[in-house]
Amino acid sequence: MKEQTIDNITESVLEQNATCADPRFQEIMEALIRHMHDFAREVHLTPGEWIQGIEFLTKVGHTCTGDRQEFILLSDTLGVSTLINLLHDATRTEEATHTSNLGPFFRENAPPKALGDKIVEGDDSREICLYGRVTDVTGKPIANAKMDIWQACSRGTYDMQEISGGHMDYRAQFRTDENGNYWLRTVEPLGYYIPLDGPVGDMIRAQRREGARPAHIHYLVSADGYRELITAIYLPGQYLESDTVFGAAGDLVVTVNENDPESPIKGLPSIRFDLTLAREGTKSGTGRMGADPSMIAEKVAG
Amino acid sequence: MKEQTIDNITESVLEQNATCADPRFQEIMEALIRHMHDFAREVHLTPGEWIQGIEFLTKVGHTCTGDRQEFILLSDTLGVSTLINLLHDATRTEEATHTSNLGPFFRENAPPKALGDKIVEGDDSREICLYGRVTDVTGKPIANAKMDIWQACSRGTYDMQEISGGHMDYRAQFRTDENGNYWLRTVEPLGYYIPLDGPVGDMIRAQRREGARPAHIHYLVSADGYRELITAIYLPGQYLESDTVFGAAGDLVVTVNENDPESPIKGLPSIRFDLTLAREGTKSGTGRMGADPSMIAEKVAG
Repeated sequence: MKEQTIDNITESVLEQNATCADPRFQEIMEALIRHMHDFAREVHLTPGEWIQGIEFLTKVGHTCTGDRQEFILLSDTLGVSTLINLLHDATRTEEATHTSNLGPFFRENAPPKALGDKIVEGDDSREICLYGRVTDVTGKPIANAKMDIWQACSRGTYDMQEISGGHMDYRAQFRTDENGNYWLRTVEPLGYYIPLDGPVGDMIRAQRREGARPAHIHYLVSADGYRELITAIYLPGQYLESDTVFGAAGDLVVTVNENDPESPIKGLPSIRFDLTLAREGTKSGTGRMGADPSMIAEKVAG
Repeated sequence: MKEQTIDNITESVLEQNATCADPRFQEIMEALIRHMHDFAREVHLTPGEWIQGIEFLTKVGHTCTGDRQEFILLSDTLGVSTLINLLHDATRTEEATHTSNLGPFFRENAPPKALGDKIVEGDDSREICLYGRVTDVTGKPIANAKMDIWQACSRGTYDMQEISGGHMDYRAQFRTDENGNYWLRTVEPLGYYIPLDGPVGDMIRAQRREGARPAHIHYLVSADGYRELITAIYLPGQYLESDTVFGAAGDLVVTVNENDPESPIKGLPSIRFDLTLAREGTKSGTGRMGADPSMIAEKVAG
C-alpha cells in the first residue's frame, strides 16, 4: 500500500477530494488543504501545538451563541474579513462605497423607524444627527433603499452584550425617501474594545495587541437591482491607525460638524455620509457561491 | 492613514502580530495569517463563501461535547493529523514504531485490567488474543510501560457513541510485565464509517468520499524516559487503501494468525504487535511548545 510521507500526504488528501459534487467546492477545498498542510510543514507544528489549536477552535465554537459570533470575531482580528471585503470590492464593475466589516453584532429584524427618529433609548450621551443620501454611481438617488444602522453604546458594548431577551437598542431599520435621503438621531459613538472575555481575547492578549476599535457606526444597505453594501463610518480619534479588525479606511472617516447648514435636524451636531451603490452583477469567474449577497446577513443572523 | 489593499492587508495584520509575548507563538501565528490570506486570495473567496465557512466552523464547535471531538475528526479527514504525526516522527533521533491517529475517541482513565483480561463486555463477535512486546530501539524490554488500548465495537461505534453516563467498554489500561510483554483478549475489529451525522459528515458527502476506515485498534503507550507513542494497528481488508483519515500504513498492518504457537493464550486466533519506543528528547529546533508529549492525551480528554 501507499506509504504516507511528509511530502506526499497532501497529494493523498487531494485525491480523496477529487470527487466533489460541486467544482467550486472542490477548488476551495483543494486550496484549503494545500495551504493548511503548507502551514503545518512550514512551522513544523508539533502534536502539542496541534492539540492547543484544536482546544482553541473548540472554545471559539462553544463561545458562539445566538448573541455572539466568536468565529467572525476571530476572522476579523486576523484580517481575513477585511481581505474578503477587499476581494469583494474588486469584483465590482462600478466604483461604489467601500465595504467594511459586518462584525459580530449585526442582528436581523432591527426595529423599523421613521426618518428623523432616534435609534437609542435613554442614553444621555451627546446626541447627533446622522444623515446623507444613497445614490447610484451616476449620482441618481435611490429611493426606498433599506438601511440597517447599528452601533455600540457609550460603554462600548452592543445591546446583545448587555440586554437579554432579544430587546434591541442602538440599532434600527430605515428606508430612504423619494430623493434617496436618510436622517436620524443617535448618540456620538466612542472607540471601544472588542469582546476580550472569550478565546479571541486570550489570543489578543498573547499577541499583546490593544484589542481596540475606533468609534464607528455600521451600515447595511440594500435596494432592488443593486449590490448589497455592508460598510461603516469611522470617527477621527483614537485607534483609527491601530484598528484591531483592520476595518477603518480613509474614505470612510467622517467628522462631526457642529454647525452644518445642510443638516436636516437643526440644533444638533451632525455627521453627513453619502453612500453609493453599485449595480448587481459581478465580474465573470467570481462570486460563484456567493452570488446572492443578501444571504450574508441572513445567514449571520440565522 | 494607511489604506488596506488586497496586497498589503497581510502586512498590516503581521504588524499587529509582531508584539507576541512568546516567539514561537508569534512564528506560528505569522505563518497561519500568511497562509490563510494566501488561501483567500488564491480562490478569491466571496463573502457568501466566507459566511458558509463561519457557519461550518460554528457547527463543528457546537458538535464538540465531552464525548465527541468534531475538530479532531475534521483535522483527521483533511489529513492534517497524519501530517502532524509524520512531522512528529521526523523529530525522533531513533527509529521507533510510527505514530498513527489518536482519533476523536480516546478517553482518559480507561479501566485498568490485568494481563490476559478481556477488554470487551458481552459481545459475541469472534474473540482474539492481542499480544506483543514493548522494547526500546535496541530490543531491550520496557517493563511496566503503560498501555491504553481502545477500539470500536462490531457495529463500528465506540462506547461513548452508544453508552451515556461515562461507562467505558472496548478499552482498557494495561502495564507490561517484567519482560515488556502484554497480552489481552478482545474481539476482532471491523472496518467502519467515521461519524457522519455532524458537519464533518456533510463535508465528506459533499466531497463524495467513502468516509470509511479500515479495521484497527488504537494504542497509546508511555514509559518513563521514553517518548509517548500514539499509534494503531490495521487489519488487511476493506478501506486500507482509502482510509478517510490517512492513518493506515504498511508497517502497522497486522494479520490474524489462526494458530500461532507463540501466542500466550491458547485456543484463540491471535494478533502479534511489538512496539518500539524512542527515548525522550527531540531534535533541536522542534517541539518547542509540545515538549511534554503526555499533554496531548491529557488535553484531548480534558
